[in-house]
Amino acid sequence: MDNTITDLLFKHVSVRSFTNEVLPDEVVKKLVTVAQAASTASFQQSYSIIDVVDENLREKVTQASRNQRFMNQGGRLFIFCADLNRNNQMAKDLGLDVTQTIEGLDATLAGTIDATLAAQNMVIAAESMGLGVCFIGGVRDNIEEVSELLNIPDHVFPVYGLVIGHPKDKLNDIKPRLPFEAVYHKNQYADKIDIVRSYNIKTNEYYNKRYGKKTDRNWARTAVNSLIKLPRSFMKSYLNSHNLSKH
Amino acid sequence: MDNTITDLLFKHVSVRSFTNEVLPDEVVKKLVTVAQAASTASFQQSYSIIDVVDENLREKVTQASRNQRFMNQGGRLFIFCADLNRNNQMAKDLGLDVTQTIEGLDATLAGTIDATLAAQNMVIAAESMGLGVCFIGGVRDNIEEVSELLNIPDHVFPVYGLVIGHPKDKLNDIKPRLPFEAVYHKNQYADKIDIVRSYNIKTNEYYNKRYGKKTDRNWARTAVNSLIKLPRSFMKSYLNSHNLSKH
Repeated sequence: MDNTITDLLFKHVSVRSFTNEVLPDEVVKKLVTVAQAASTASFQQSYSIIDVVDENLREKVTQASRNQRFMNQGGRLFIFCADLNRNNQMAKDLGLDVTQTIEGLDATLAGTIDATLAAQNMVIAAESMGLGVCFIGGVRDNIEEVSELLNIPDHVFPVYGLVIGHPKDKLNDIKPRLPFEAVYHKNQYADKIDIVRSYNIKTNEYYNKRYGKKTDRNWARTAVNSLIKLPRSFMKSYLNSHNLSKH
Repeated sequence: MDNTITDLLFKHVSVRSFTNEVLPDEVVKKLVTVAQAASTASFQQSYSIIDVVDENLREKVTQASRNQRFMNQGGRLFIFCADLNRNNQMAKDLGLDVTQTIEGLDATLAGTIDATLAAQNMVIAAESMGLGVCFIGGVRDNIEEVSELLNIPDHVFPVYGLVIGHPKDKLNDIKPRLPFEAVYHKNQYADKIDIVRSYNIKTNEYYNKRYGKKTDRNWARTAVNSLIKLPRSFMKSYLNSHNLSKH
């Protein structure tokens, strides 16, 4: 059942430190083309990928994304966008009006899905070439500013960034995921909270090993802290201002 | 640059016809575990996977999903859910309140992203084992009914289904994607509409070959028709009723 591909998928860790070795344009073209080979919802292909190569612009996008410095230290920075603008323009070309659909919440989800199917293909292709990757949800922390920097029009929004480059340091240990039984349900959704609680003990051991000292850090604390710190409560008004998720 | 993994990714086509060969539980466990190895937004792991194996239930879910018969003819049917309920419960365990965050629109997007990163890993693992897959956005067409059938609680919603099984027929030709230049932007989002128009000619040729006759079908017509037919204008009120995307 296991093969070289599942082996690669199991080895995934995020990489936040890259060498200065340049990722050539032909590799980028390959990665984007592989991304495009993924499924897309109703074959709408509702996404776009922005490759931020201008140094000054990349620095500004980095600062707007909670200033995670590794975003601008080696590698390439791609911004994955949900893009309903293209579909809207094609409808106009045909003399049809689809704004009611694309300005609804479901289209925002569909664009997010399409961007993410493409992104995950790109991740796997990159890792198969020995490259390292890190998603940057932080582009949504100042989404208005990032959108202005990238000239994002109506009916489009940046979902996250993806940094891809040559890993500089030894990779982190693989972070233990929730137990299989916690995410897998048979026939109907079931309460799994006891399984999740036992997992917190396991993740505490992971963090103690990673930091080389005893901490109280575990999955629940880390995940919950991040939910408290980053509510992104502006998202609805931002999307509405881009004529998305209006109804 | 190309390798066995990129070769596999480039070969992806949707499969809608499966043999009756049973997909054993150990394969399912492997596929779900590989899915879990993907990145997740802020390591929230905000998704759940429901494996619909009860025949009666699977038939009902199939009928509720625009009755796409192949959903219940061979293979296994997985429903990928965005799941903020787990995170909410863990916060409660810690005596903290994160409902403001998880009931906002950004958390709905984060759960959708997490479900999709996991799903695409599962797709690739399945295809690496010679299996075929098809996403079923149709589970959102009667999302209220599907949610009741699957006992979906507050703060959780089904994003799509994924059917995985042994392909029965010869696979379709790979559907040509938008040209690289249409989805790839350098530094800033740019208007690409002329490139998209040329692509419509190419997709018309693909459909003529697939159907063995001259048609007016192309990408734009197909995509736009589907946007007109499936506005899913109930999505906001559905999500609100599950205490999601409320603000």
